[in-house]
Amino acid sequence: MKTSVCIIGAGPAGLLLGHLLRAAGIDTIALERQSPDYVLSRIRAGVLERVTTDLMTRLGLDTRLRAEGLPHDGFNLADGDRLIRIDVAGLTGQQVIVYGQTELTRDLMEAAPRRGLEIIYEAGDVAAHDLESDTPYVTFTKDGVEQRIDARFIAGCDGFHGPSRKAVPADIGKTYERVYPFGWLGILADVPPCNHELIYANHERGFALASMRSATRSRYYVQVPVGENIEDWPDERIWDELAIRLGPEAAGHMTRGPSIEKSIAPLRSFVFEPMRYGSLFLAGDAAHIVPPTGAKGLNLAASDVAYLSDALIRWFCKNDVAGIEGYSEKALARVWKAERFSWSLTSLMHRFPDTDEFGRAMQVAELSYVASSRAMQTAIAENYVGLPL
Amino acid sequence: MKTSVCIIGAGPAGLLLGHLLRAAGIDTIALERQSPDYVLSRIRAGVLERVTTDLMTRLGLDTRLRAEGLPHDGFNLADGDRLIRIDVAGLTGQQVIVYGQTELTRDLMEAAPRRGLEIIYEAGDVAAHDLESDTPYVTFTKDGVEQRIDARFIAGCDGFHGPSRKAVPADIGKTYERVYPFGWLGILADVPPCNHELIYANHERGFALASMRSATRSRYYVQVPVGENIEDWPDERIWDELAIRLGPEAAGHMTRGPSIEKSIAPLRSFVFEPMRYGSLFLAGDAAHIVPPTGAKGLNLAASDVAYLSDALIRWFCKNDVAGIEGYSEKALARVWKAERFSWSLTSLMHRFPDTDEFGRAMQVAELSYVASSRAMQTAIAENYVGLPL
Repeated sequence: MKTSVCIIGAGPAGLLLGHLLRAAGIDTIALERQSPDYVLSRIRAGVLERVTTDLMTRLGLDTRLRAEGLPHDGFNLADGDRLIRIDVAGLTGQQVIVYGQTELTRDLMEAAPRRGLEIIYEAGDVAAHDLESDTPYVTFTKDGVEQRIDARFIAGCDGFHGPSRKAVPADIGKTYERVYPFGWLGILADVPPCNHELIYANHERGFALASMRSATRSRYYVQVPVGENIEDWPDERIWDELAIRLGPEAAGHMTRGPSIEKSIAPLRSFVFEPMRYGSLFLAGDAAHIVPPTGAKGLNLAASDVAYLSDALIRWFCKNDVAGIEGYSEKALARVWKAERFSWSLTSLMHRFPDTDEFGRAMQVAELSYVASSRAMQTAIAENYVGLPL
Repeated sequence: MKTSVCIIGAGPAGLLLGHLLRAAGIDTIALERQSPDYVLSRIRAGVLERVTTDLMTRLGLDTRLRAEGLPHDGFNLADGDRLIRIDVAGLTGQQVIVYGQTELTRDLMEAAPRRGLEIIYEAGDVAAHDLESDTPYVTFTKDGVEQRIDARFIAGCDGFHGPSRKAVPADIGKTYERVYPFGWLGILADVPPCNHELIYANHERGFALASMRSATRSRYYVQVPVGENIEDWPDERIWDELAIRLGPEAAGHMTRGPSIEKSIAPLRSFVFEPMRYGSLFLAGDAAHIVPPTGAKGLNLAASDVAYLSDALIRWFCKNDVAGIEGYSEKALARVWKAERFSWSLTSLMHRFPDTDEFGRAMQVAELSYVASSRAMQTAIAENYVGLPL
């Protein structure tokens, strides 16, 4: 097979990129290791910045997002005593839209056939070759048969564990990493949310987050130690813990219900530089991971794709090399700021097992300062809606 | 002897408090362990917030400060490549005034005799007694003779090492502390400053600060490891290091000269709660220490004194107990915010020996974000000029 851009990974980053390239008339094939059903079963974040919704609008794929997504004008930080509301709309003039990543992925997947975006699912042993050349290619196995796709460029949208990043020689790439000493235990349930906006709570027993996917589906999280066993957390224990950590007001409006999904995710900050190696471009989780605090992961993938699609379209349609040459630096500038925000909000809102009393007092003082300062609230809000591209 | 308020310590906190009480007609005696010359020989910070200059104005002791102090409209953060100017005046409508703490102390000391503020210098073995009662007293020795002052209240303005804080029973007081793994090596020289505003620089070799006392006297600092020996730092080595760390532009304007004073100060964050115990009130360094980054130490002492003088005047002149009962909570609310700012700016601008590459990248990302965000610059500026009382 032969194509212009071979995309490795058909999660939201790969699908967005594929659609944007197709809309510009550029040939592309996306390879996905999993089945469509598996891709749609992955539960992920659900707060979309404008960079993400703008891409969906540009693709004309925002109908369901606009109809079913919940526009949010703000969110809350809780410090055990009170809710500190960050009036995102008032402070920045922008909103975010709560719409599950799964739903966004479904919209992109379902539109693929009619937009001529070819996706090969259940492609195993994917490997990228000859990346230093202008004639790279990708090999994979499908139904036991080894196949090959020749392309002009390869886009690595295959997440943290995918093969793309690993194809960059070790002496070229540089990694930055912070692994946090806790995870998030998430529970998804078909119950109305306890609050119409998100609540990020720093409680002495640990962090908790009240969030939602829709008016009837809630997503909650509690901070748990690394190595915690999900078996030790029957639903009732999670609800009990949430009731304490979110504080009496939110707890009073919390509806309990059986879990649809329940899992523990580790928290990690990770950046790989550069995001381009020869004919390979990395986008999304393949190049960087943020802890989920602040919901930057999907949106950062979308901004990578915004830069990368623009760069590739300029190359293919206008013979302009500047976009692809500047991609890594441009994308990383925004990535680092989002990494900073995610790390900073994670540091502010969680209990760290090795933090002394002074460190804890700094969290309390910062929350108290945030509550009193319009400037600091604005700084948080502008990061929450996403810094300018 | 008998007085209404016995003040332990005649540094800037004790002197300011004494003058404010005297201006309200309240009897007071201040005890100082050192001689006047020794007090004036201590080199300290020199950036005054409005809370401090306002108190001097209220006392009618701001003539020299207004004539000789340098109003500053902003300051700079440097990241090795560039200066990031924080336009304090433009962002907050306020200025700070650069005027050495030594000069402020001199103004207060010289005004003491004509304002009827009694200061007993070289008072040794100072101890506070019967603090739980309404009849506390202070004992001390002067010229080998033990003496006693009976007072209604005692104000502990005797700094971090003074006896006042130690007079609070261990089961009542709670301390929060962070000792930083580096110190500031300071050099004072009669040379014009390299820049008309302060420069806080985060260089890969460590932090540096370019500051000044006047148009002809400069004060510079470089971060050094804990335990560094001042003997290993001849003047030329300090100037060489500053020239590197401050960056080529500032270095190009730096004038070298022989040191008038040279010393290494440790960096510490420290808070003691509560700031009142019975008839004893703590103010300034007796209750809290900030690292010098951001120049909050003297100004925090001034805000304590603003609260405390008001509380004592209400008690003595209006028979109103609310001020003294609310003092500790009110003062600590502001103290914690200044502690947070000082810790945060210290964390942002210094090299920490145990920081990994991700931590270092977070500093770079934060400086880059600060450079691009008016909201974040405003948050920094409003802390720099001092949060509202």
